[in-house]
This record gives sequence, C-alpha cells and structure tokens, in this order.
Amino acid sequence: MTVIRDYVSAHRDRLLADLDAWLRIPSVSADPERAGDVRASAEWAAAALRRTGFGTVEVWETDGGHPAVYAERIVSLGLPTVVVYGHHDVQPVDPVELWDTPPFEPTIRGDDLYARGAVDDKGQVLFHLLGLEAALAAYGELGVNLKVLVEGEEEIGSPNFAALLRRERERLRCDVVVVSDTGIFDKDTPSVCVGMRGLVYCDVDLYGPATDLHSGMFGGGVPNPATEIARLCAQLHDADNKVTLPSFYDRVVPLTDRERELMAELPFDEAAWLRDAASTATWGEAGYTTLERIGARPTAEVNGIWGGYTGPGRKTIVPSEAHAKISFRLVADQDPAEVEEQFRSWLADRVPVGLRHEVTFSGGVRPCLTPLDHPAVQAVTRAMEQAFGGRILYTREGGSGPEADLAEVLEAPVVFLGVGLPDDRIHAPNEKVNLPNLLRGAEAAAYLWHELAQALPTPTA
Amino acid sequence: MTVIRDYVSAHRDRLLADLDAWLRIPSVSADPERAGDVRASAEWAAAALRRTGFGTVEVWETDGGHPAVYAERIVSLGLPTVVVYGHHDVQPVDPVELWDTPPFEPTIRGDDLYARGAVDDKGQVLFHLLGLEAALAAYGELGVNLKVLVEGEEEIGSPNFAALLRRERERLRCDVVVVSDTGIFDKDTPSVCVGMRGLVYCDVDLYGPATDLHSGMFGGGVPNPATEIARLCAQLHDADNKVTLPSFYDRVVPLTDRERELMAELPFDEAAWLRDAASTATWGEAGYTTLERIGARPTAEVNGIWGGYTGPGRKTIVPSEAHAKISFRLVADQDPAEVEEQFRSWLADRVPVGLRHEVTFSGGVRPCLTPLDHPAVQAVTRAMEQAFGGRILYTREGGSGPEADLAEVLEAPVVFLGVGLPDDRIHAPNEKVNLPNLLRGAEAAAYLWHELAQALPTPTA
Repeated sequence: MTVIRDYVSAHRDRLLADLDAWLRIPSVSADPERAGDVRASAEWAAAALRRTGFGTVEVWETDGGHPAVYAERIVSLGLPTVVVYGHHDVQPVDPVELWDTPPFEPTIRGDDLYARGAVDDKGQVLFHLLGLEAALAAYGELGVNLKVLVEGEEEIGSPNFAALLRRERERLRCDVVVVSDTGIFDKDTPSVCVGMRGLVYCDVDLYGPATDLHSGMFGGGVPNPATEIARLCAQLHDADNKVTLPSFYDRVVPLTDRERELMAELPFDEAAWLRDAASTATWGEAGYTTLERIGARPTAEVNGIWGGYTGPGRKTIVPSEAHAKISFRLVADQDPAEVEEQFRSWLADRVPVGLRHEVTFSGGVRPCLTPLDHPAVQAVTRAMEQAFGGRILYTREGGSGPEADLAEVLEAPVVFLGVGLPDDRIHAPNEKVNLPNLLRGAEAAAYLWHELAQALPTPTA
Repeated sequence: MTVIRDYVSAHRDRLLADLDAWLRIPSVSADPERAGDVRASAEWAAAALRRTGFGTVEVWETDGGHPAVYAERIVSLGLPTVVVYGHHDVQPVDPVELWDTPPFEPTIRGDDLYARGAVDDKGQVLFHLLGLEAALAAYGELGVNLKVLVEGEEEIGSPNFAALLRRERERLRCDVVVVSDTGIFDKDTPSVCVGMRGLVYCDVDLYGPATDLHSGMFGGGVPNPATEIARLCAQLHDADNKVTLPSFYDRVVPLTDRERELMAELPFDEAAWLRDAASTATWGEAGYTTLERIGARPTAEVNGIWGGYTGPGRKTIVPSEAHAKISFRLVADQDPAEVEEQFRSWLADRVPVGLRHEVTFSGGVRPCLTPLDHPAVQAVTRAMEQAFGGRILYTREGGSGPEADLAEVLEAPVVFLGVGLPDDRIHAPNEKVNLPNLLRGAEAAAYLWHELAQALPTPTA
C-alpha cells in the first residue's frame, strides 16, 4: 500500500508541527502548579481531534483530577468499534540540568525529536491522527468505528481513571482497545506487546519500643524493628528467588512453549541490557530467562527501606520503628486484591511478638494479557508487518498501567500498537522519539483499522 | 565511721553549690559551637581540684579535640596509686522542649537535682572532691596517691582519649583505675559494676545499579540493594538469636556459675524494665536471662537501615544503593579489631554478585571485666557496704566507654564506683541525680581510699 506510505510521508511536516505545538505545553500532571497546562494540553488535543474530523469531541472532567479528552467517529453501528487509548500528561523533568536542550522546546537532532512527552505519549497519540487520514485516503472509509480516549493522569498512576471508565462505560462500549503507549523491542526488531504486569504496592510500618533506646542498655534484650524489617524483607524470596507469599503463583498463567520460543527469538542482548540497567549481574527467579523474569513473571521488590539513625557518624540505638515500601509486579491472572490479602496474612504470620505492624496498600493495578492467537493480536501483527516490513515478534511490558482497567471495565481485549524504542529515555532527561519510527506508527495505525475490520466479528446490533 | 557521714552531710550545701555552678556550663562536646563551653568546663574543674588541695592540676589538650583535666595528689611514692576517671562533657539536650526545666539551669525538686550532666558525669566527679575531704577529716591522710583524670570527649566516643593515655602513660602510672560514670542496680539495691561491654560500629554501603531503575522494566531481573541489605541484616542472627560471625564467641569469657547466681539475686523486675524500654516483649540470645543478655553477652544490632524511596506515596524503583549502620556490643575478652575482621569476611562471603559493598568502621571500644574476687573489686564492695549499709551485689554495664582503654594502656585493673540510678534519664530530657545517692557516693569515695590502701599490695619502688 504505497498510498499509505506516501500519504504519511507527504504529511510528515504537519505531524511535526502539531507535535511541536503540543510538546510545548508542559502538561506535568504530578505538579499542582501545572494543572492549567494539563488542561491546556487537553484542549489542544480536543482541537486537533476536531480538525481530524471526529464528529464528537469532549473534554471529560475527572473527579477532582486532570481532564481527559474523548473523541468519537462512528461510521456505522453495524461495524466493530475500537477504543484507542493514550495520554496527554507527561512526567516531571527533574533533573532539568541534565537535559541537553530544554524539555519543553522540542528540538530535532538527526532522526530524533527531543522533548518531554515526545514518545510518552504525545507522539504516539498524534501518529493516530495522521494514520486515520492516511487510512481514509487509502480505503475511502474505515471498517470500524473509532473512539479515542486521551487520559491526563497516567503519569501519576491514573487515580481517577477507573472511575471515569465506569462512569462512561456506555459511551466507551467497544470490541477491542488499542493502547498506544508502549514500544517495539528495538529499532531492528518490530514487535507487538501482548501484556503488561499488574502492581500491588504497600507501606509496611513496624513499631517496637516507644522511643529509640540506648543499644548498650537495651540492645540484645528487646526486639529491634530495624532488624525485624530486614528479616521480613529478606523472607520475601526463597532460595530460588521465588516470592514466598502463600498461593502467590496459583493464578499465574504459565508461559506456553510457543511464547517461550518466540520470546527466545528476540535478539535480547543481556550485556547491553545490563549496561542500560547500569548493573553488573542479572538476578531473579530460578528457571526463567531475564526477558521472562521482567515481563512474564511476577516479582516482589523492596522499593524503599528505612529505620533508625541514618545520618553521618554513629548513634548506638535500638530504633523505635522501621519501615519498608514493598511492591509486587503481577502477571495474568493474578488479582491485586488477592495478593494484598496474601501479603497481609504472610506479614501477620511473621511479625514477632513485641512489635506492632501496619500495612497500607495504595491502589492495585491488574495485569493484562491477550493471547497470541487472539484475532486482534493477529490484526495488530499484520498492521505492524506492513508498516515495518519484517517479521513481528511478541513482547511483554514489565510495567503497570491503566490498561487492565480498560480490559476489565470495558470487557474488551486490549492490544498494543506502540513504536517507542528502548533508548527513548522515557521518564528521564533527554526523552526523544525516533521520527522514522513515528511515521511507521502512523502507517501501522492506518493499516490497523482495515485489519481489525477483517479480523473482528461483526457485532450483533 | 560517723565522722565521714557527718562530714559529708555538713558540707552538702557546698557540694550542691559547686554542682550548680558546673552544671550551668553547657559543655556539649558534640556541638562545635559549644567548644568554648567545654573548655570553660575544664577550667572550672581544674579550679575546683586546686581548691580541694591537689598539688598538681593541669588542663591537658588533646589532638584537636576538647581538653581533659588532670590533677594529682601524691602522698608517698611507697603507697599504691589510684587513677580516678570521670568526664566533664555532656550529651546534647535535644529535644529541649521535653525538659520540664531548662537543662542548664539546675533545679531541685524533692530529692532530685535536674540538669544535663547532673549524674552523667559532673555529679559523680564532684562527689570525689567531697569524699576526699571527708577521708582526710576521718583518717588524717590517705593511704594512696590519687590521680584524677576528667575527660572532655566521653559523650562523642572519646576519639582522642586512647592517644592521650598513651602520651601521658608515665604520668598516669597507677595500680588501679576507679571509674565513676556508672550506677547502682536500683535505689534499694546498691551494687558494684564489674564490667562494661565493648563496641564495634560500622557503616555498610551496598551499591547496585548506577541509578535507581524502573521496577517495571528491571524489577525481578537485577539484584536489588534494598532487598540485599535486608538479607544481610537478617543474617546477623541465627534462629537462636546468636550472632553468626565466624569465631565471634571464641574469646567470650563465660559467665561463672557464681556470677550467674549473684546476677540472679538482683531484684530484676522484667516487667518494669520492659516499661522503661517502652517495649512489649523481651528478645535475645537463647539460653540467657535478660540481665545476662544486656550485660554479659555480646550482641549485634541494626542501628539504622535505609535505601530507596522513603518519602510519601509510591515510587516503583529498584534502588541504586542501600545502607545500614550495624554495631556489635562485645564482652571480655573479645577484641574489636578481630571482630572487625570477622565482619569484613562475613560480609564478603554474603554480598551477592552484582553488588559492590564498602564497610567503614568507626573506632572500636574494648570490653572490660574485673573478676569478682579481685582485691580492688572487694575494696569497692566494702566501701559501698559502709556507705549504703547493705549487701552489695554485682552488675555489668551494657554500654561501652573508654574504660577498656584505661585498663589496656595503663595496664591496671578497672573498678567502678558509681551511684547513678536506672531512672536518672542519662542522655534523655530531664536528666537528674538523686541527692541522697550523691552524698552516699561521697561517703563511699571517702571509704574507698582506705579500703584500697589495705587491699592493694605496696608497690615495689
């Protein structure tokens, strides 16, 4: 379909001009002082969607949070309906001094455009608009109805997103969700993500003596919360680095042989990955490769630990209290609420006499996974094949996002169309988007509506 | 000897006036801005020692630290010589808002005098001056030569004390050291301390990835320093809460049956002790009582632990580094340098591949112990019996001080004459000294020179 490639290529400058304008709006959702900018970003997106021919475009308020943008383009109620998900808020820019050019002054160097939000996620929302125009140019009309939902709170954990989905469930009714907020394996290995991990996150607080005690007078005679928080964190994994919570693995969907084979085909350069991690050794659950460990297996992590004296020099105390931030990455079909209960009971079994403990969970995220043989995954695969021109492999994202809420509330499978690269430095200084990839994303989006129209069953009216 | 009791009683007001004047000098050695006050405190002590008739009184500079005071009163080179040790610096006063009366405005309420340093240690230095006068009034002359050394850096770990002792070893030559910086078991149970624990203190730093990593992208695939610092701290003790360092217990002098019997006679109220500790359960090495654990057995404590994100809310990271402050209380005859080596090798055996570690030790303290049947311990016991009028039991101090340096450098046994009470709140707000006890301390000091003269062999000139 050279018409799609040609159309995208011919309209490259308009895409870049739009991207430049949108990226100049510093829509940092984490910064209360930027709330006006997040709103301006939503308004900008709404105007862009209107220009692209969406019949209905609305700015959706959330319950006290940042607004989302909704747009819909209904061709026929007899056609399948797709929800496209992206987000218009961006990460903070600190440490700003590490940016080579200002984060909100988009700058092109070589094939890359540098700015906060370039690939995460404004670039990946915008390629859909060009893709839609290219599809219309190529096919005349789409074989699907499109609904676009651009969230404004993804970078702060989507605190109001599930509620928004539930409120607008009827408007968002669809047959499949296409998430464009991920990437491909590397620039030479186009791939389709098929799942993301879920998350359970909590604060564990251990309280011992009511005040710090002199370790000479009391040390060795009373339980020490700093020692005990360490013992708890140390017990999270067994000798095989498996998580020790009872029933933790019961619902885990095992990797199929086919998935393991395909995953093994990914040209994973462990040495390079370790360099990216600035780490000198791999670690993890026995019996799994690194790629499997970080994408397809659940984990427990100590994200923070503290207690007692942490300043310079020495203070000989038995601390009064100690704390840890502990999180679990989940994979399908683990349930955050169940894992919370497992951890509650695991903790209660282990906190020794003489210490009091509290555990506070903050908003679990469900894992999501769409099987390789699902028609929608196959449709994305074909769209990517046509845009990138090579064999498409499959990946899993180790992170956690609102995708599972989409799957659960909208009762639709989630597929991923994303073109980010591993070196795009999302969340870090000098975030960038690779422009040739961005254009291929627009092409893939153009092909996708056609492929999905063929793959999905016609809805019963 | 009613003459001693009467003398002490008759001069109570002068002791209180001296104490009031000295306690008003805020000689906080930890606070660089108080360096002038620490010096003023040394000068005050020197003047007081001169008034009491010491022939030689000198302010001794330390190598860049706070000054000590030295005084000597030689009766005859043919008599035994005693070094009396105390200190004139005091702990910081924070949190100052918890003091009922200002820490440097000594206030008498009931039988107690409240001020920072009241019992730790200015009160216990001053009772010696009155004791000396009382002894002279009772016996005409002492049967020993007295050397008094009042340190100015005890509350900051005596960083220059060992060097000072080595420099002045000849001047300080003696047959026994009397340390007055401890207490009795409780107000109804006069006792003599026979040992103090030593200390090894270190910072352990664990370094993993060069930066904090996204736990979704890297979690479960690289070693996590926060998890590993926890695993290390958790391995410090075995299931019996014994310290796991190889050879850690090899040099420990076991408690004799007699010592365990006498210790068991102490009216130790574990429930009350737990209330003081504001703790709800005891803990410790299997096979030992709480009193044995905190006085006569070595321990390992996590004094502080930290790594990763410790702020509000959540941050899903694999931290780049994690740290712990770990200390060991030692008992005779453990050697701090040996324990340091044991811990170095223990750590090196346990830090996993992929992490780099550093361990930094800060000034070990030797433990000290003088056997119950030592003539000097028996002399202190008799002096205490006469002053307190009851049976004298024996205790061990769980804390660590410069006493072991005195024993090692001066090659003399160390005995303890102290009258502090467990509720004197040393190092805490509302530190106090019990005035009847302080006067009994002066009496005991008066008796002690006579008892020591009888107990110690006449030195060969």
